[in-house]
Amino acid sequence: MNDMPKRVRIVEVGPRDGLQNEPSHVSAEVKAALIERLIDAGVRYVEAASFVSPKWVPQMADGAQVLERVSAKARATGTTLAALVPNIRGLEAALASRVDEIAVFAAASESFSRKNINCSIDESIARFEPVIAAAREANVRVRGYVSCVLGCPFEGEIAPQAVARVAKKLFDSGCYEISLGDTIGAGTPSKTQAMLDACIEHIPVAALAGHFHDTWGMAAANVLAALQRGVAVFDASVSGIGGCPYSPGATGNVATEDIVYLCEGMGIETGIDLETLAQAGAYISTALKRETSSRVARALEARRRRQEKQRI
Amino acid sequence: MNDMPKRVRIVEVGPRDGLQNEPSHVSAEVKAALIERLIDAGVRYVEAASFVSPKWVPQMADGAQVLERVSAKARATGTTLAALVPNIRGLEAALASRVDEIAVFAAASESFSRKNINCSIDESIARFEPVIAAAREANVRVRGYVSCVLGCPFEGEIAPQAVARVAKKLFDSGCYEISLGDTIGAGTPSKTQAMLDACIEHIPVAALAGHFHDTWGMAAANVLAALQRGVAVFDASVSGIGGCPYSPGATGNVATEDIVYLCEGMGIETGIDLETLAQAGAYISTALKRETSSRVARALEARRRRQEKQRI
Repeated sequence: MNDMPKRVRIVEVGPRDGLQNEPSHVSAEVKAALIERLIDAGVRYVEAASFVSPKWVPQMADGAQVLERVSAKARATGTTLAALVPNIRGLEAALASRVDEIAVFAAASESFSRKNINCSIDESIARFEPVIAAAREANVRVRGYVSCVLGCPFEGEIAPQAVARVAKKLFDSGCYEISLGDTIGAGTPSKTQAMLDACIEHIPVAALAGHFHDTWGMAAANVLAALQRGVAVFDASVSGIGGCPYSPGATGNVATEDIVYLCEGMGIETGIDLETLAQAGAYISTALKRETSSRVARALEARRRRQEKQRI
Repeated sequence: MNDMPKRVRIVEVGPRDGLQNEPSHVSAEVKAALIERLIDAGVRYVEAASFVSPKWVPQMADGAQVLERVSAKARATGTTLAALVPNIRGLEAALASRVDEIAVFAAASESFSRKNINCSIDESIARFEPVIAAAREANVRVRGYVSCVLGCPFEGEIAPQAVARVAKKLFDSGCYEISLGDTIGAGTPSKTQAMLDACIEHIPVAALAGHFHDTWGMAAANVLAALQRGVAVFDASVSGIGGCPYSPGATGNVATEDIVYLCEGMGIETGIDLETLAQAGAYISTALKRETSSRVARALEARRRRQEKQRI
């Protein structure tokens, strides 16, 4: 485990990717309170909003309000606030809200790209090129997501080279970091490493992030596999909020608590306080009227109850 | 990932370790039906019974009946049936039931040893020595368990050297295989590898097995870490049955389904059919009136429902 990073940066995607994929909706006030709690826990990068059409994603219609509520605290703590944007119109809205970064997205699977955003992979990247250029013109950094990097709900297996091709295109278009997403959560560690090896041939590993879903229980193992390849940035969703719309009933995003426990337990710094983070997770789980899907949060809660019992 | 084993042997502990730690009890008939379903899935090693005093563990009082029901099928398929024994009396009962192997147990933590079996570690091993000798005399192989290898509910951290010392004592006493158990499920991959490295200095890795609990969500990552050290035998409990009595409400044994998915998804053979295994897990979960704690089982079920919906 010698080549693993000493420090990992967590990109908290719960307030956007997580909440967008929950059946219950919460108010801008609750979203802002969640983000403030995450910042209190030491999270320094939050994907806070999505400036897509409210017709598509009504849960995200209040992005400007959320950003306004949290911007002072984010600035005071040096926290990066990011927003997902699908097009120039979304970028304009994001810039008006003075986001620090934006994120654009493409798929490693042609079928997924067509079903999700109704165009081919190359068309989607071509459409993003002016958005990326305009963002950089405004001194706003751009992060790129690639989905389906370890399998597609329509095509099944995806070749590592197909992932590397899309990742390189986004990188060459001006994205400073490429987040590689196991959308269906079916990847295993050897597939994770093979996919990363293909990407690392074209992109510095320092510009790659891992975005794992825990649908098949492999997220912690896949994070370990990615750490062993030198990946030092991981997307995660507090309390594991956000299902996968293609796997109803299944677990979606890996819980931030679980990645923080894994890293800190191996001596890799995250800058995040696990107890405070778990409290942020409990806050949003209660607001969503759902149980946490973080095993670490459940174990912390069981330990807390045990300790209380011993005190009585 | 070059040094990982090509094939892994699963030691299914659900019918003993799993059921013993469930609040609901099931009949000998249900236990036997579970074991038969596991054999149908390709499992070839089942810990089927425990010959401890029924005063201590009433759930296990029917061990002889369970073994009688499944012995023909086990013999016909070459499946090893094992039983946990605490002393010579337990061994005699196990031999009368014609088990293929027995298992004995010690802790890597002095506090745990004293609270769990009311004697020191060395006393516990000294007491097992005549049991091991008598079993070998009867041509019955003996497996040794070491608990608390990655932490103790009373002492916290356990030094890798303390684990290696107990493991070596059991190995030197005649155990052919030492199962290293993360009883509280709090271990991380780097701790797993440090603990294994200490053991491998004294015991061939081929004689070591990993026994992980998923309480803190680390089991899959720890299995990967152990595979990377060459460990090729893993204990697991179908459907993740069996809690941890020291962490109420928390997850216990890693689910067999999850380890099989992890291994097969990395090209490591287990000889087990995942779908049939998950059916065995559904059978016992229903009997126990509980949900599966296997994420793989949940993902398989979600996929099955989705496919049924598409057919309608």
